[in-house]
Amino acid sequence: MVFGALDIGGTKIAGGLVDAGGRVVARVQRPTPARGSAEGMMRAVDAVVGELAGRAEWGALEGLGIGSAGPVDTFAGTVSPVNIPAWRAFPLVERVRRHPAVPAGVEPVLVGDAVAMAAAEHWAGAARGVANALCMVVSTGVGGGLVLGGALHAGRTGNAGHIGHITVDQNGPVCPCGARGCVERYASGTAIAAHALESGWRPPAGRPATAREVGEAARAGDARALAAFDRAGRALAAAVAATAALVELDLVVVGGGVSQAGEALFAPLRRHLASYAVLDFTRGLRVVPAGLALDAGLIGAAAVGGAAAGVAVRGRSAA
Amino acid sequence: MVFGALDIGGTKIAGGLVDAGGRVVARVQRPTPARGSAEGMMRAVDAVVGELAGRAEWGALEGLGIGSAGPVDTFAGTVSPVNIPAWRAFPLVERVRRHPAVPAGVEPVLVGDAVAMAAAEHWAGAARGVANALCMVVSTGVGGGLVLGGALHAGRTGNAGHIGHITVDQNGPVCPCGARGCVERYASGTAIAAHALESGWRPPAGRPATAREVGEAARAGDARALAAFDRAGRALAAAVAATAALVELDLVVVGGGVSQAGEALFAPLRRHLASYAVLDFTRGLRVVPAGLALDAGLIGAAAVGGAAAGVAVRGRSAA
Repeated sequence: MVFGALDIGGTKIAGGLVDAGGRVVARVQRPTPARGSAEGMMRAVDAVVGELAGRAEWGALEGLGIGSAGPVDTFAGTVSPVNIPAWRAFPLVERVRRHPAVPAGVEPVLVGDAVAMAAAEHWAGAARGVANALCMVVSTGVGGGLVLGGALHAGRTGNAGHIGHITVDQNGPVCPCGARGCVERYASGTAIAAHALESGWRPPAGRPATAREVGEAARAGDARALAAFDRAGRALAAAVAATAALVELDLVVVGGGVSQAGEALFAPLRRHLASYAVLDFTRGLRVVPAGLALDAGLIGAAAVGGAAAGVAVRGRSAA
Repeated sequence: MVFGALDIGGTKIAGGLVDAGGRVVARVQRPTPARGSAEGMMRAVDAVVGELAGRAEWGALEGLGIGSAGPVDTFAGTVSPVNIPAWRAFPLVERVRRHPAVPAGVEPVLVGDAVAMAAAEHWAGAARGVANALCMVVSTGVGGGLVLGGALHAGRTGNAGHIGHITVDQNGPVCPCGARGCVERYASGTAIAAHALESGWRPPAGRPATAREVGEAARAGDARALAAFDRAGRALAAAVAATAALVELDLVVVGGGVSQAGEALFAPLRRHLASYAVLDFTRGLRVVPAGLALDAGLIGAAAVGGAAAGVAVRGRSAA
């Protein structure tokens, strides 16, 4: 038994076959056509599906999940990825279903990429066996997904857990989304680098002004870099505490490029969380790094495809 | 078939029997012993149960739900109501189970009072037939409960939906809970009255300085009263938008004493919501008044008791 997975992003289109234990047994990928048309994008997706279908394991396909950069609308089966302007309300589910290699009994299932990451962490990563978890991706943007009552809570349109755009400062700066004081304005890699630069930090000669470099500077004790991560950690903490108050959480998992900064991010996040998560049922909430790295998108899409097919996707044994 | 219900509050202990259609067919109540001991409180609860058990309908009891002022811990079966200091981690579920009139096969089930209100609105009120709803109680404090995927989401300890203590201003004033900028600091009746007084509003001669009076003044066009409700509406809107981004909502229901102010509260709430709920899947969220009034606590407790007993609690027909 295998589950097929597609992971659609602004830079690459990945495909995979994942076994019942959550291991990727086949992996293919193509660059996302940079300025392609909607049909040009779809041809690249079709090519990835075709290549996967050429693998012997394809014969044992039990489900097919699609994780995509958002916004997605799983109810309509459409995607409108911010970084893929050619696709707006593009009927990706229907188009993948019509690929000649997709068996008639296999219904493609769509989720947002951060929700897919949460499914992956729940199946085979740091949230394995956890009933109620928030899994966040802190990267160029901030996303997330929720596991509630032991199952993925994707929401009606597949966007639940969208923690990057909840308001932690109702009078804060206007976000490109249109609201104010969104988490992403403080905690994304972009925001961290921008804040460090504004406070006078500069990357070493020849290095780019990225959150990764700010993280290196924070590790070396640079006060401006530390302040940028403290600001990010505070906003994440307020948002995590809000989520815990709203749904009750047992665990918070943090992945994505910015989480690679390690304690530079986790230390202020945990410190501020102790100030914001103070109710009897939110206090002492654990925050841990993601257990899966680059394959999380594929593993999560496969998990969702398997679950939708009615196959019990069980956590890997801890051994 | 009837469901038993207990509603434990700081001023009264209510009990009821509710039929399969969500109608209260018997109702009893006693004042909460003001400065009573833990056992004195329990005697009052036992008396309410005993009185209910004297009703003919008790013979058809299929479930028993308990809604209590919070905090509660439904996992442990204990309550620690802020307004009932004699009860701290009091084992209410076990004590009700041991009441001689409670049949052996009926297992009492506990939830927080705001979660009970959400269960009631979902069963027989404004959220009937809605898959994903946030039901809020805006009163002396601000509470809430969630319906997700067509079922009550109470959380592991029965406190999910606790929207009054999510942070909408991470740099805001410290809340008695210990966090900063909680919704309750802006939107509770207490906060609305305090803000109006601070800005110079005064109640009419002989009237108390309550949110109700501020609501009357707002309806009459008093600018300071309108500003106090606008501030409340903004905080509620930011919190509602956050909830919608996190779990995806189809409907928001607002009840509680402050909601009686009507458009004085709903108009700014809806106006600000249009600014904060701006994602594809949060935009245009409907906000409506609660459908049930004083009996919501009993109906909700009964719904939870019935659901736990495995009885399909179905919505009242719209007729």
